[in-house]
Amino acid sequence: MGAGMARNLLRAGERVAVYNRTREKAEALAAEGARVCPSAGQAALGCEAVFTMLADDQSVEEIVFGSDALISTLGRGSVHIACTTMSTALARRLATEHARRGQQFLSAPVFGRPDAAEAKRLLVVTAGNEGIVERCRPLLEAVSRQVFVAGKEPWQANAVKLCGNFMIASLIEAFGEANATLRKADVSPHLFLEVMNALMGSPIYANYGKMIADEAFSPAGFALTLGLKDIRLALAAADELAAPMPLASLLRDQFLSAIAAGQKDLDWSSMVRVAARRAGL
Amino acid sequence: MGAGMARNLLRAGERVAVYNRTREKAEALAAEGARVCPSAGQAALGCEAVFTMLADDQSVEEIVFGSDALISTLGRGSVHIACTTMSTALARRLATEHARRGQQFLSAPVFGRPDAAEAKRLLVVTAGNEGIVERCRPLLEAVSRQVFVAGKEPWQANAVKLCGNFMIASLIEAFGEANATLRKADVSPHLFLEVMNALMGSPIYANYGKMIADEAFSPAGFALTLGLKDIRLALAAADELAAPMPLASLLRDQFLSAIAAGQKDLDWSSMVRVAARRAGL
Amino acid sequence: MGAGMARNLLRAGERVAVYNRTREKAEALAAEGARVCPSAGQAALGCEAVFTMLADDQSVEEIVFGSDALISTLGRGSVHIACTTMSTALARRLATEHARRGQQFLSAPVFGRPDAAEAKRLLVVTAGNEGIVERCRPLLEAVSRQVFVAGKEPWQANAVKLCGNFMIASLIEAFGEANATLRKADVSPHLFLEVMNALMGSPIYANYGKMIADEAFSPAGFALTLGLKDIRLALAAADELAAPMPLASLLRDQFLSAIAAGQKDLDWSSMVRVAARRAGL
Amino acid sequence: MGAGMARNLLRAGERVAVYNRTREKAEALAAEGARVCPSAGQAALGCEAVFTMLADDQSVEEIVFGSDALISTLGRGSVHIACTTMSTALARRLATEHARRGQQFLSAPVFGRPDAAEAKRLLVVTAGNEGIVERCRPLLEAVSRQVFVAGKEPWQANAVKLCGNFMIASLIEAFGEANATLRKADVSPHLFLEVMNALMGSPIYANYGKMIADEAFSPAGFALTLGLKDIRLALAAADELAAPMPLASLLRDQFLSAIAAGQKDLDWSSMVRVAARRAGL
Repeated sequence: MGAGMARNLLRAGERVAVYNRTREKAEALAAEGARVCPSAGQAALGCEAVFTMLADDQSVEEIVFGSDALISTLGRGSVHIACTTMSTALARRLATEHARRGQQFLSAPVFGRPDAAEAKRLLVVTAGNEGIVERCRPLLEAVSRQVFVAGKEPWQANAVKLCGNFMIASLIEAFGEANATLRKADVSPHLFLEVMNALMGSPIYANYGKMIADEAFSPAGFALTLGLKDIRLALAAADELAAPMPLASLLRDQFLSAIAAGQKDLDWSSMVRVAARRAGL
Repeated sequence: MGAGMARNLLRAGERVAVYNRTREKAEALAAEGARVCPSAGQAALGCEAVFTMLADDQSVEEIVFGSDALISTLGRGSVHIACTTMSTALARRLATEHARRGQQFLSAPVFGRPDAAEAKRLLVVTAGNEGIVERCRPLLEAVSRQVFVAGKEPWQANAVKLCGNFMIASLIEAFGEANATLRKADVSPHLFLEVMNALMGSPIYANYGKMIADEAFSPAGFALTLGLKDIRLALAAADELAAPMPLASLLRDQFLSAIAAGQKDLDWSSMVRVAARRAGL
Repeated sequence: MGAGMARNLLRAGERVAVYNRTREKAEALAAEGARVCPSAGQAALGCEAVFTMLADDQSVEEIVFGSDALISTLGRGSVHIACTTMSTALARRLATEHARRGQQFLSAPVFGRPDAAEAKRLLVVTAGNEGIVERCRPLLEAVSRQVFVAGKEPWQANAVKLCGNFMIASLIEAFGEANATLRKADVSPHLFLEVMNALMGSPIYANYGKMIADEAFSPAGFALTLGLKDIRLALAAADELAAPMPLASLLRDQFLSAIAAGQKDLDWSSMVRVAARRAGL
Repeated sequence: MGAGMARNLLRAGERVAVYNRTREKAEALAAEGARVCPSAGQAALGCEAVFTMLADDQSVEEIVFGSDALISTLGRGSVHIACTTMSTALARRLATEHARRGQQFLSAPVFGRPDAAEAKRLLVVTAGNEGIVERCRPLLEAVSRQVFVAGKEPWQANAVKLCGNFMIASLIEAFGEANATLRKADVSPHLFLEVMNALMGSPIYANYGKMIADEAFSPAGFALTLGLKDIRLALAAADELAAPMPLASLLRDQFLSAIAAGQKDLDWSSMVRVAARRAGL
């Protein structure tokens, strides 16, 4: 993800310093004008804005607070733009810790996969201080097809991102249950997909529906363990707010059942196998 | 619904006899060339094919098996095309009863509302004997934008239709839970809708999402009681097939809770109020 | 069940006429003084009160409304006491139909198995006209260890019975989920059962807990299909009343999954295998 | 809780040093022979075994790892017996940290309330090294009516305790749903409770059933927030083990809904109000 975003920043004429744990990944960007750094802390040094795009809360904590850490080198007034799909709790902690140091912080999680990042087709949902959002807007627009502002508190953007992933997981589960019933009724999942495509007219339904009807779950576009992580984070956000999400609870249980059945490395759409197994298929 | 379909059959050059319990509704079609009949039985007399488009199982049973009934006047070899969203059990009963009388039977439920019926924008999902499906295809195409064949047993088409409505109800519930959480996070449902529209690119999400964000549930496009009915029928079909549908069970409980709160005449998308109330909103 | 109840009525000094589809079962009671009849209609003829104890709604409908039917021979003022665990809808229909003929009707479903019926250890929950309940109380007390009056409408007793079975099914599911987790934690289900016995002090927990810990599901004390039937009826009663029962919905889905896995003839406590399978056990 | 346990240790002839954040609570035990200490660290100094009985994970972490901490004063070979209902994750951390210091660790959560602690009526579920369990058995027996050994890993005892609380919460929810339906059927919750008491024969059902039928939720015997905490911990334990617990998920959502409705300080059995509200009561 980060590579595509960095490339689009370079294309937009920005000066970019890059860091990746796997140095070769960073080196690939050198040819396009990026300066490769030996650590996140070095990359943040002297920058107006630093993007982080990492796997999960733990990697963000390491990069930001760990040894050779970003938070200790980022200048006063500079902005940390966190694109990771992370917990609302971590977003709040980052907001507090950056503020203590006179630094700025925006959450800016994205919808889209690496190919969308390369093609500048990401959707960015950001939140934070209005002035800072406006100051960073050119950067966010440089890496995306559209920028949405969720609110003035960075964690609000994370809540939106987690709810968005919940919406997608919901449609996967709905497909799974419908297909389990229809397969037992001797109706082809491909026929049902055609009907759904005509009805919904959505590329998301078309793509997931095809993976599901074809049972093409490997290699994973988005691993089931990551899907489970995001639903856990959505539930955690809802829990803080005392908002029950029974469908999210159902999704969590289905993902756990998929993990128990050995599907952790398959695509998250393979969750549909849980409904199939429960129907004796 | 029936009026729009009849009109499109007339436009396609078919001779059409019509019956409606409310005679004025039928009379309106006389000007366009339809012959108005005093009963369903009269309308079916001498026809090659008779369409029924009714509210529920009970009305189908009355029209087909009741006094002055369709099944007693429909000729041998003629076809009953049942467009009602009905139970798979009734579809099987109709198949059996028509077969006993040497009549043909197709289930052909549709996706779309009255305005789509007028505009020939319906989707038809049919099932039944292949030869009969082909014989009736011109009629089905005359009333729709696309025809899907689910299988050789009429009830399979009803299973697909019920699962389709389940898919829509699922996205309503997903919106409801996401919005409950986001409203408690002080994020606007309209902002979330914009993100979903960019992500899903689906007119169905756009339409329901707007009703939900605007809380515009009256007048009902599709009444909550009808939504509950369809989810009950989907669960009944799944029960016959021993296919658990936990998300459908959740939807049923949410619809019941909405009924208990007095929402029966509101649009089915008002189900989202249940999630909101459970979050204390 | 019926045999034990008839025997206790004879012991109480009542004159008893008996009918069973399997004549030998009825003959066994002749030696104890019962008059064996060739049909339910014959058994009801001239009786002050007729008990029915049958498998399900359908068998009640056959015995009451079918050929050689009870309702046509039961005298004016005589009482039909229906002990079957049946739907609230059928109870209402029976109340209406008996009333039309000047007959009386009580629902009086029981808790307990055949051995409890023999031992006069049943619990009877009855409902209906107060005067009739009092008139029949000696009969109900003759077959049970305790009689409860749920209300003035017969179907209320059925609602209580269905909710009671729901309570038992709920504890089975709770055991199933706890044991799935604990087995994966390498904790013995027998150890957990000991703790639960000390905590709950309930023979019901002890009996079901032992079946579950021993995985002794065959022969069935109460078949899984009957358990599913009762949960369906509980949900139907709740649906009529617009009272969501999400735990009952969960139980229904678990039972369906058990049916899909071939467990229909096992004891209903074998539902716990569903939770185990979902955990990969 | 701790006071009753300390008193029973004193009665058993043990020498006891006590610490409580609220010093008066500890002073009350001085008259019975306890030595009052100014900190947990002081209390642990020179002891063979130290019991901790605290509110939650966070308080355990403070007492054990915080300033003036137990872990720094407990002698090599001495045992920490943790009675708090805490997460399995914290139990594992404690096992590791104590082992690193040559100290022993047992988890020993209890079932029962303060009055049961006073009356030596607690149930103790312990787990840990077998030799240590045997060494500590006299202490555990001194404070309880029965001791259960769940396994060799301390966290297994916590898993059992969490599952036990899950069993109780499950019966509360079952009562809630049954009563919602029965109240709408005009059946008294007290009548249903009588039937359940006759059927279940359990003091736990009797006590909770009475609170529920009487709607006597304040003062709380066990606050709803603590119930939610325990269900969260049960779900976390199940999540680690990839064991879905859909009924626990349902309970969590019901507790959250109760919190959203302002019930946090009521007894956890007030969760039944959620089912009532969903039924429009």
